[in-house]
Amino acid sequence: MIVMTGSFRIPADKVDTARAHMTAVVKGTQAEDGCLHYSYAEDVTDPGLIHVTERWTSHEALDAHRTAPHLADWREMFAELGVSERNLTLYETDEGVML
Amino acid sequence: MIVMTGSFRIPADKVDTARAHMTAVVKGTQAEDGCLHYSYAEDVTDPGLIHVTERWTSHEALDAHRTAPHLADWREMFAELGVSERNLTLYETDEGVML
Repeated sequence: MIVMTGSFRIPADKVDTARAHMTAVVKGTQAEDGCLHYSYAEDVTDPGLIHVTERWTSHEALDAHRTAPHLADWREMFAELGVSERNLTLYETDEGVML
Repeated sequence: MIVMTGSFRIPADKVDTARAHMTAVVKGTQAEDGCLHYSYAEDVTDPGLIHVTERWTSHEALDAHRTAPHLADWREMFAELGVSERNLTLYETDEGVML
């Protein structure tokens, strides 16, 4: 399985403006084949720092995601929303154990 | 390496009350030996849903975390804050690839 974690930053005063755009890409991605989890969440200690968590069944599913129209729409907003400090790390994992 | 992802829920109107308590356990845990990442973050589409992301160097480091005093302090607040729907999954991973 693939787990991805990372973050990006939005100026704290633009998070509410960005929320509808983030919701669109999150909901669109959650509906993709092979997407097990996709969330954007604002750090409770650092306003404007948005954590990204993803889980995918395969690299093929992830490759398809990269050309999804909702992802392109979201990226088009980066300059206007002031998105910065983007980072994302991909981990190859086992199936996981629920604690 | 170990990656952990999960979430818990706080009534949305208690998130601001909970913030100081969450900050204490997050900062305390980030300072622990073997902790590579520890964050709590509120879902941008679902107020009150707090995503947990952790990375640890080893099971030994994670075992030590389980008895940390800041974690005990945080757990003592669960009833008062109405914490529910707690879940956490542990993945054994490779070192990851930054995208």
